[in-house]
Formats: sequence, structure tokens, C-alpha cells
Amino acid sequence: MTATDEQAQPVNTVTTGPIQGSVKHYQEVRVESGGEPVTLRIPVRRIVQTNGEIFDVYDTSGPYTDDAAVIDLEAGLPRLRDTWTKPDVPGPRTQLNWARQGIVTTEMHFIAAREGVDPELVRAEVAAGRAVIPANHNHPESEPMIIGKKFAVKINANIGNSAVTSSIAEEVEKMVWATRWGADNIMDLSTGKNIHETREWILRNSPVPVGTVPIYQALEKVNGDPTKLTWELYRDTVIEQAEQGVDYMTVHAGVLLRYVPLTAKRVTGIVSRGGSIMAAWCLAHHQESFLYTHFEELCEILAKYDVTFSLGDGLRPGSIADANDEAQFAELKTLGELTKIAKSHGVQVMIEGPGHVPMHKIVENVRLEEEWCEEAPFYTLGPLATDIAPAYDHITSAIGAAIIGQAGTAMLCYVTPKEHLGLPNRDDVKVGVISYKIAAHAADLGKGHPRAQERDDALSKARFEFRWHDQFALSLDPDTARSYHDETLPAEPAKTAHFCSMCGPKFCSMRISADIREAAAVQEGMAEKSAEFAEKGNQVYLPVV
Amino acid sequence: MTATDEQAQPVNTVTTGPIQGSVKHYQEVRVESGGEPVTLRIPVRRIVQTNGEIFDVYDTSGPYTDDAAVIDLEAGLPRLRDTWTKPDVPGPRTQLNWARQGIVTTEMHFIAAREGVDPELVRAEVAAGRAVIPANHNHPESEPMIIGKKFAVKINANIGNSAVTSSIAEEVEKMVWATRWGADNIMDLSTGKNIHETREWILRNSPVPVGTVPIYQALEKVNGDPTKLTWELYRDTVIEQAEQGVDYMTVHAGVLLRYVPLTAKRVTGIVSRGGSIMAAWCLAHHQESFLYTHFEELCEILAKYDVTFSLGDGLRPGSIADANDEAQFAELKTLGELTKIAKSHGVQVMIEGPGHVPMHKIVENVRLEEEWCEEAPFYTLGPLATDIAPAYDHITSAIGAAIIGQAGTAMLCYVTPKEHLGLPNRDDVKVGVISYKIAAHAADLGKGHPRAQERDDALSKARFEFRWHDQFALSLDPDTARSYHDETLPAEPAKTAHFCSMCGPKFCSMRISADIREAAAVQEGMAEKSAEFAEKGNQVYLPVV
Repeated sequence: MTATDEQAQPVNTVTTGPIQGSVKHYQEVRVESGGEPVTLRIPVRRIVQTNGEIFDVYDTSGPYTDDAAVIDLEAGLPRLRDTWTKPDVPGPRTQLNWARQGIVTTEMHFIAAREGVDPELVRAEVAAGRAVIPANHNHPESEPMIIGKKFAVKINANIGNSAVTSSIAEEVEKMVWATRWGADNIMDLSTGKNIHETREWILRNSPVPVGTVPIYQALEKVNGDPTKLTWELYRDTVIEQAEQGVDYMTVHAGVLLRYVPLTAKRVTGIVSRGGSIMAAWCLAHHQESFLYTHFEELCEILAKYDVTFSLGDGLRPGSIADANDEAQFAELKTLGELTKIAKSHGVQVMIEGPGHVPMHKIVENVRLEEEWCEEAPFYTLGPLATDIAPAYDHITSAIGAAIIGQAGTAMLCYVTPKEHLGLPNRDDVKVGVISYKIAAHAADLGKGHPRAQERDDALSKARFEFRWHDQFALSLDPDTARSYHDETLPAEPAKTAHFCSMCGPKFCSMRISADIREAAAVQEGMAEKSAEFAEKGNQVYLPVV
Repeated sequence: MTATDEQAQPVNTVTTGPIQGSVKHYQEVRVESGGEPVTLRIPVRRIVQTNGEIFDVYDTSGPYTDDAAVIDLEAGLPRLRDTWTKPDVPGPRTQLNWARQGIVTTEMHFIAAREGVDPELVRAEVAAGRAVIPANHNHPESEPMIIGKKFAVKINANIGNSAVTSSIAEEVEKMVWATRWGADNIMDLSTGKNIHETREWILRNSPVPVGTVPIYQALEKVNGDPTKLTWELYRDTVIEQAEQGVDYMTVHAGVLLRYVPLTAKRVTGIVSRGGSIMAAWCLAHHQESFLYTHFEELCEILAKYDVTFSLGDGLRPGSIADANDEAQFAELKTLGELTKIAKSHGVQVMIEGPGHVPMHKIVENVRLEEEWCEEAPFYTLGPLATDIAPAYDHITSAIGAAIIGQAGTAMLCYVTPKEHLGLPNRDDVKVGVISYKIAAHAADLGKGHPRAQERDDALSKARFEFRWHDQFALSLDPDTARSYHDETLPAEPAKTAHFCSMCGPKFCSMRISADIREAAAVQEGMAEKSAEFAEKGNQVYLPVV
């Protein structure tokens, strides 16, 4: 099927073909890894502009946008990382442990080329625990990707069926669709039937790391009664998922018995599913959470596969009223304690954050997370900067996400327009992803990330030069940009016209501006005249004092 | 026609009827104005919740949402302010001059009641030039509204036909439509034929202040050749518009001859239409802008009608690359000089700002504006926090708008999804307005505006208590919120169900959370147990040092 066909998908097919105005390209990089030379193929979305300039964009879409690739969902993607060296060192075979031993793994080389940074920076940040590379040994299909504040801000898209709707083939297509538009990770949050099989399909076909919340599947196994959960059942679920290749797991081990009463007077109580499940368990048994009491065993399991912890914020605020409260920060402090334990086991860790936070309280979240959790990568859900706009929470949260990203958050979990209202469909997933690419990119610009502004400049230049096709191709969503332009001026000549429908030909500031530039270039005397004027005091009016 | 019918409008009809889930209501306030008692009727959107609680929302929609009102576009709206006292004092009859003389005008009383603040605060802020009340004596149909950083952040929606498309009836409906969803002002930026007549229709039917950019009409009068513009022609245009009742006018008087060369090396030159027109004029004549050399005469005209200056940023950046550059700040400094002159004539002033600015450069804009322009209200266009997302610039700019609003910007000019691509249609206008209501409200929350959080709390409470109808009614866009919910769970029982489609009944954190609250309330021993646990050291693991 073609890329522009956004209708319902027949079962077992997914969206393929390049994004409009670009081609899939691989930058070949030769590195030495484990004493052996390896050629890495770094995927990019290549835009050949109408003026001949080439612009390559970071690309998460995997082989699906490669016209030369043969897609077979039954067979899964090529097992890219299977042939890569896994150096033998004391301790677990995790990116964290290798980094600490001074080893730049093939994954780190791949990431360095992908981000345009020194491989040593990648290693050092992973070694310090300030960045993670979610890369389960059993998910060799994934293209390595790093989450850390010194790198481009990443985004996550949640997919997954629920008891109410959805099918497996739809979920795989959602993954393909989300990564097509730029999702750096996806989380499979399925809660209905066929959880195991859905996840298997997603993992075998996913070019990006896949996260899960194992407690959801565990709860299915006890027919939805949280009080029936046990450590053993949970542990077995984690092993099952790690064996399949899940790259990171959300674990709400910071929801402690004594924190639960802190939520009783909140406006919106506990809004995290995992958090409420564990709170219900703790209350029912009057015992400390088994996730907390068995945390070291959990570390041993995750270390074996190099599964990354995503320490869940089960007590995150669910409303502006509850932001930055005692319950939230009590849990965050406990996550800091658990971070140390995980790292002592050589396990990579990131920390999940809110949620719903008004703008003036956002930065404090990053500051405390960094202080208490040793700068482990922060991974936040938005946050929504206001509660009053259901149906637009991709926007309320993109505001918060951009701000928290600029402040140092390394990954942003997307929010779709359906948040709080219903399950996202295909269009919602795309709008959510694009909104978060905007937030992440705005944050990269705000942090002065070295390569971020290049794309803004290329697009602005194309805009100023009326290269409409290039403007579309360089944008996050060429299909929609072009269709909006076509609504008012559909004819092909309008794509090279030196004006647009907003102002019409007479009023075009860009055209006048180009004329000015020309005039400025030819009128040699102008600068001198301007200087003369400045010498005379630069003023027609004297200032009123 | 009904409110939910979003199809194309027949000529000469506009959208009427209350927003779903609310009724138009007037809060009656008795004040003394000019020695006479006056009863003011403050319009609100009243939401009677299913639990009996009443929530009143600031309302800009005028009589159109009042089921009891008879709408007659030919007759125009009632001339509300005609009967209000205009106190006789030395100097011009402007809100600024009255405020300076210690007079709280009826407009100020209206505003104080509308914003829930002390009338004296309104007067003091206007007197200091930190707030403006755009209220031309010849636009008595408007409901008074204040723009200043101590008040709720306001938003402006641009409407207006262009040479390419649109009709007069469509433009009036766009005004009605934009104010229905919350636009505090509209600007009529018409550039095609029938400019005068379009504006007359809009003014006579607009419950909100109306702004214009007179240079657009002046340019029409010289057939689009900027070099043919003259002061006399411009002056006559300003008088024509002031007579009609335009409440504020954008004047690009800060685009000086010597600043034009500063834009020559920009990535996107001059992107303001007014700015490029004046730059072209200055270059062609090698003279200083007539807007600058005749500025005092302009002040005298505006003072007569109490038209507010909106000093235009003709050299605002049109791309991330050009943000905060020499040209932009040179003009801003000149706007500061002009602010002093305007205020010396008793004329109210606000200052327009960018545009395209990366997040880390946003706050500097507010800081310099306040320093150089005596804290005159700042009125910015976004700014867009990145250039890479045409078709989503309502989002790229909502991010910047929220941040600049929190920093002290008093009014935000909306951006629609069609920005840079085409002319906004009805849906685009609505999405633009809602996106900016979000940004403005997020800014109000971020500034700690006294009443802002009440609505978030009411909505969050409704959400937590599964009062779906109330959640929709309290939202910025009840129609869309409801329709999104109905997509997955259309049946009426789902509107009171204690779960939703996202997680299904088994996984609902809100339901579990409510159970926890109940458990916490009944289990008296829980707090004690928790305290006991805390005494024992609160820890299962000892911290890793």
C-alpha cells in the first residue's frame, strides 16, 4: 500500500514506502568494535532539495520506508545486532557495565554516528548513568538509540490494545505508523487478550526499542484482581517478557505502603494504572510492595538481558492541583534509592516523571530528579500545563513537554488528542507523535543541541526562497503541509509561485523583502547614507524625558 | 442554526446559541460611575454541573450565545457603552487620561467585575501605561476588556479576506465564530476589495475590540505600489477607520531607514507585511518613514477617538535563525521612544513582538520590551519555538506563547494550522483560538493568576468523579471532547460509567483510587500503621552509599 493512503488497513499489511519528498538512505560508517572492523549503516531520511542541496534527517522508521526492503511480518525484521560483538568482561553484559569497563560497544558507535557526536561521549554518559541504551540482547532487530540529556530529546509513543477495542494486526501497524513519523521508542501497553502474541509480533517487527509495564500482564493472569498478585507471578511475567526481547520495563517499585495515605486528599488520587494496582495491593495486604521488597532479585533478572529499568511514577499527579505534592516527591526520593541499587547491579535506569504540572512548577521536577536520582535520564509524560482542554491534551502537554525537555528531560512520552477521552486511532497517533517531535525539537533548540537548528534553517531558507516542495519535504509532516497548501492554491504552478494565498501577490512580505535584499546589494550608497543619518543623531524626534 | 452544525454558513447568518453544556448568564453588578449608580451586566458562560455546583467562565462571545437575544446583522449589536458617562477632564477623553486623573470609568468597573479584581487596580495599571483598554468611542457595541500583565492573558484572532478568497458574510461569521471559542479581540486584516464595508459589518456586530493595520487599506488605495504611499493618504485612512470605530491600530513606525540594511543578511529578511511595505517605501524614497516623522500628528488623531496604538514589529524575526537579532532589537528600542511620545499625548499603547524565537531566547524579549517600553503591554505573535512543522504552527507557537505569556506578555496573537501555507477556514480558526486559550490559560496558571486554577480544579474533580458531562462542559471545547469520547463509547450509560475506554473497567486507576480513598477513610488504623512503619526506619533496603 502507499504512504498517503490513510484508510483502514487490511490485516497483516503495514504502511511502507518513503515519506513524501524523501528517500531512505544509509550513511555507511566504518568503526572498530571488539578488535574487528565493522561497517555500520546509519539510517536517514534523505531529502534532495530542488536546489540540489541534500539534507539528511534522523530516522526511526526502520526498513518500512525503504523501497528496496522486503517486508515480511511473519519473518520479522533482519536481526541486525546478532552479529555484533558482545565483549566478555567481569559483571553483566549490559551497556552500563561495558561503558564502565571503558568499552565502546558497537551500539555506542552506531549511536555516535546517528547523533553526530564522539563515541567517547556516548560511553562516558552511559558509564555515568546519565544516559541509557535500551537494547535487550533478545531484541536484535532494533537500531540502537540513546536516551540522555546530552543527546537529542527522544519521544515515546504508547500503543496497545485494551479490553474494549483493537486487534493484533492493528497494533503492529500502529508501531510502524508511530515510528514512521518519528517515535524513538514505543511502549506496548496491551491489557486485553493475546498480550504475549501481540508483543511478539511487535518485537519481531520493531526497529525501535520496545517498553512494557509487566504488571499489566501479571494482572491479567489473576483476572484483574490486584490483591491476588504475588512476587512469583510478577517475576515469571518479567522473565517471559525479557525472554521475548522487551528493552525497558516500567516498574512502580516506589509506591510504598506509607505513601498511599498521602494521596487520599488529592483532587485526583492515584492516576497511574500501575501505581493504583500496587497501592491497592499494599492496602489489601498491609504489606510493603513486593516490587520494593524483591527489587534486588528484579535487578538480577534485568541485568541478564540488559533490560533497562524505567522506574515508574505511580504517584504522579493527575491534575494541576496535585502537582509537586508530598506523595509525588516521596516516591521520587525512593526511586533515587532504587536507582542506586539497580546501578550497583549493572542495570541501566531511567526515571519516569509527571503528568500534570503548571509551568512554574515544571523545572523543580527536573532539579529534584537530578539531585535524588544521580541524573538518571528523566522520562516524563507531558506534563500537561493545564487540565481545561480535553481533546487538545497533545497541545496542553506539548507545552509542558517542551519546557521540561529544555530543562533536561531526556525522553518525552507522547499524549494524543484522545487522552482522558478514548483510545487513539491512527490519526491520533500521528498527531501525538508530531506534537511530541515538535516539543522535543523545540527543547533541542532551547538546549543549543549542536545539529538541531540546521533543519530549521534549511526549512526557513526554502520558505524564503519560495521552494514550496522543499519546505514540505523538510517538515515533520510533508503530507499535511502539502495538503493544506493545496486547499487554497492547488495548481502545480503555485508550488513555485513567489507568493502564497495568505497575502496574495501584492502584499507578499517575503517578495518585497527579497526585493529589498537585491536593492541593498546594488545600491552601494545605502549603507553610507544610513551611516550619515546615524552621525546626525539618528533621530527625528528628541526623546521625551 | 444550531451550535453544533459546523457546515458552511448561508450568507448573512451566523452561529448562535449557547455552547454545549452551558447557558449565557449575566452577573449584575451595581457601581457608581460619574456620580450616577449604574447596573452593569457582566456576561459569563454558566455551567450548571450535574452535582448542582455552578461554574461561571469568562465569556467573550457577546449576545450570539444568548438564547434570548435577537440577532440582526443589519442593525448591529446594541450600543452598550453609549449611555455610559465620559467624564469631562482636561486632556483627551481616553482611558489613559481618565485613569491618570484618578477616575475609574464605567469601562474600568466593568473590567474589574469581569476579571474579579479591585477597580482601583484597573485604574492604576491603565494610568501607569502597564495596561490598555482598547475602546474607541465609536465602537460602543464592545464589551470592555483589558490587556495588561496583571490581568488574565488575552488572545487575538486575525480574520480578514485577501485578494485570493473569502466574502464579507464569511468574515463576520469568522468574528462570531472566533469570539464564540474565546477570542478576546479580533483583527480585521482584510486586503482585498470592500475593505471599508467588511470592517463596518464586523465593527457593528463585534462584542470584542477590533484592531486593524491601516497601511493595508492605504496600499489598496495606491493599487499595491508601496512607493506611492504618502502621509496624507495614510492619515486619511486612519481617520476613516477611527471614525468607524476601530479600537486599536497596528502602526509600524519603528521601521527606520537605517534599520533596513540590518535585515539584508537575515535568513528570512522582513516577514511583516507592514514592515516590508514601509521598508520598501523608505528605500525607494531614501527618506525616513512617514509614520515616524508624522508620529505626533498620528497621536493627536488617535487621542481624539481613544484608539490604542499597537506599535508594530515590522522587523520581527521570521525564523529561528533571525531571532533576537540587531534589526529586531533596534526597532524595539525605537518603539520605546514612540511609546513615550504616544503616552505624552494621552494615547494608550501596546507593543507588538515576535514571531519566531527558540525557547531559550524568549524571555529576553519580554525583559527588553519592559525595560525600553516602560512596561507597555506586550502583544506577541506566538512566538513559534521551531520552524520545522508547517501545518502544526498552532502547536509550535502555542509553546512559545505559553512561555512568553508566563514571562509577562499581556496578549497573544493566535496562529492557525494553516500559517505559512494557506488561509484559515472555519475549523482552522477554531483550532487556533483553542490552542491560544490553552497557552493563555497555562500562562495564567504559571503566573499564579488568582482565579485561573479554579477551572482546572473543577474539571479535574469532575474527571475524578466520572462526571463526564461536567468534564465536557467545563472544557474549552465541549463539542470535540464529547465527540472524541463518543467515538469509542457512544452509549449514554458510558457518560456516567466509572471507567472509560482507555483502560476498561478492570484497569481504571481512578476507580481503584476512589476505592483507596474510601479504604483510607474507613481503615482508621492505616495512618497509625504507616506511622509505625516510619518509626522503624521506613526502609526495607538500606541505602547504597
